[in-house]
Amino acid sequence: MADRTNRAWRLRSRPNGSLADGDLELVEEEIPALGDGQALVRTRLLSLDPTNRIWMSDIKGYMPPVPLDSVMRGLGIGEVVESKREDLPVGALVTGFTGWQEHLLADDSLMEAPLSPLPDPLPAPEPAFLGALGHTGITAYLGVEFADLKEGETMVVSAAAGAVGQIAGQIGKARGARVVGIAGGPEKCAHVVDDLGFDACVDYKADGWREALDAATPDGVDVDFENVGGPIMDHVLMRLNIGARISLCGMIAEYNAYTDANAADGLRNIGQLIMMRATMRGFLVLDHADRFEEAINYLAGLLAEGKLKYDETIVDGGIDQAPAALSQLFDGSNLGKLLVRVSD
Amino acid sequence: MADRTNRAWRLRSRPNGSLADGDLELVEEEIPALGDGQALVRTRLLSLDPTNRIWMSDIKGYMPPVPLDSVMRGLGIGEVVESKREDLPVGALVTGFTGWQEHLLADDSLMEAPLSPLPDPLPAPEPAFLGALGHTGITAYLGVEFADLKEGETMVVSAAAGAVGQIAGQIGKARGARVVGIAGGPEKCAHVVDDLGFDACVDYKADGWREALDAATPDGVDVDFENVGGPIMDHVLMRLNIGARISLCGMIAEYNAYTDANAADGLRNIGQLIMMRATMRGFLVLDHADRFEEAINYLAGLLAEGKLKYDETIVDGGIDQAPAALSQLFDGSNLGKLLVRVSD
Repeated sequence: MADRTNRAWRLRSRPNGSLADGDLELVEEEIPALGDGQALVRTRLLSLDPTNRIWMSDIKGYMPPVPLDSVMRGLGIGEVVESKREDLPVGALVTGFTGWQEHLLADDSLMEAPLSPLPDPLPAPEPAFLGALGHTGITAYLGVEFADLKEGETMVVSAAAGAVGQIAGQIGKARGARVVGIAGGPEKCAHVVDDLGFDACVDYKADGWREALDAATPDGVDVDFENVGGPIMDHVLMRLNIGARISLCGMIAEYNAYTDANAADGLRNIGQLIMMRATMRGFLVLDHADRFEEAINYLAGLLAEGKLKYDETIVDGGIDQAPAALSQLFDGSNLGKLLVRVSD
Repeated sequence: MADRTNRAWRLRSRPNGSLADGDLELVEEEIPALGDGQALVRTRLLSLDPTNRIWMSDIKGYMPPVPLDSVMRGLGIGEVVESKREDLPVGALVTGFTGWQEHLLADDSLMEAPLSPLPDPLPAPEPAFLGALGHTGITAYLGVEFADLKEGETMVVSAAAGAVGQIAGQIGKARGARVVGIAGGPEKCAHVVDDLGFDACVDYKADGWREALDAATPDGVDVDFENVGGPIMDHVLMRLNIGARISLCGMIAEYNAYTDANAADGLRNIGQLIMMRATMRGFLVLDHADRFEEAINYLAGLLAEGKLKYDETIVDGGIDQAPAALSQLFDGSNLGKLLVRVSD
């Protein structure tokens, strides 16, 4: 490589509410010569996920907070461009925690989790391996599995136009359930029904959305694939049937609020879990590596049958764009999987 | 019977917040002569339970709301005093939905659930069959079972001095767990530790109770036997370990608040179920009649071994006392099982 400079976003302060200027700083740093057991990976695509916001905070989470002044953690796809490691040959495409940076100096000590090689040749477009055939799709698959969704039942999916939600809903349809999405705005709702095949979609930004959700779930709700939390989840709780299951995948409505005690109202209707003898299970995809192969086979099968569509919002402009792009997850302006193209 | 008058509490209006004068009316009504298939049961003991408050409201629940102008629903023990039914012979003690009244005219149509005969002779004091050996004890047993509490784990029990909580905690000790109670006031806490054998008890009315709970759960919380909801539950959620289980038995802090949108703050920390990959299960004892025998055998065994103590607060003064006594559950002034002695 001619250019031995890395550009990386380092976390300088923990955001209070939404991410603000100065919480992250874009720094330029010289890349040292490779030592034994090291490889240099150039980031190609960076995945932006709701959990990024959690990693920036100091709240108790499933991975430790990103230490202040460290490079921001993130999943990505990269290409090995220099290597003194046999398992990471030059030219290989890999996926894993590349971080919010143009280059990752990979070795045993630095990696939070090993980088995984992508299949060669790629059986699907590269971005799919961070989306429908990556952690995103596997998350959707596991959430439906854990809820044991059955034919003829009704499943509600919040953030239905989001990366996980749109796949979860299509899995629900493939399993023979009635699937009702919740999304923001008439365009997203039309897309979810007309293009992704959900039975109905409720626009939570419209007046009367609660009544619309009631009307769309005439037989109540057997499964809630929950991505949002907040008042939307609170209303879904009031629709639960006896024996309902909630797959608690995300609560994006509340992530910015964790650091702002006045922002979140809290859930008032958790008591419905008693009334309806319902079960709620929180889960994280990274716990279930033993089911990744099963999940990917299932998802690849749906894709091959034409039963799985997915959207991508790919932000161009390089690593510089990552912080601004992240906000799309919280204001709902992205459609489907949100990625930043870091290099070609 | 010489006296052919029944005195009964009829629900005249649904309480807004706490039960108020006039929501229930004590009426005197003539008892008709028995027809075929009828029996007259004189109530001896009436059980007061948090769920009574739910039955008075029109919120979606597991049993229909008590219709306005009907006799208030309640569990009790009664004696058959007149009978034209073979299954309810005069002199038999029975338990079931006697209602908040001195006499129940029992027949196939009136009973929401069949009355069950008590063993003859009684192997334990009569009040125990509404408490430790009744629905109360079975509830505690099932909640610990569903949470799959293991030796060496830490279980937190809220409302630890209450009827269900005190039994749940002792079952936890019998299973080899560390058991931490939460109760209101230093006397209750001392009782829970010194007399009932919990490892620790946190007084939620004292300043610094959150820090005290943290200190009492140095290894975090594996199981939450939840009876209360509200800010207490919210703090327990922040103590959960990975893989924690929450048995959601009751949320008494919120029952009065259901009808008062300003009263309940809501739970802010449900997102911890994701971070900790935790599971929360709401349950109701009446769903699990197939396990009642197993539960009662277990509880009777603990009793025989001296490993199960329980408190009763028996309010004298007859059926008149029921509404005032119910408030003890919500201000926490009762200890253990709360009963009204309706007749001797």
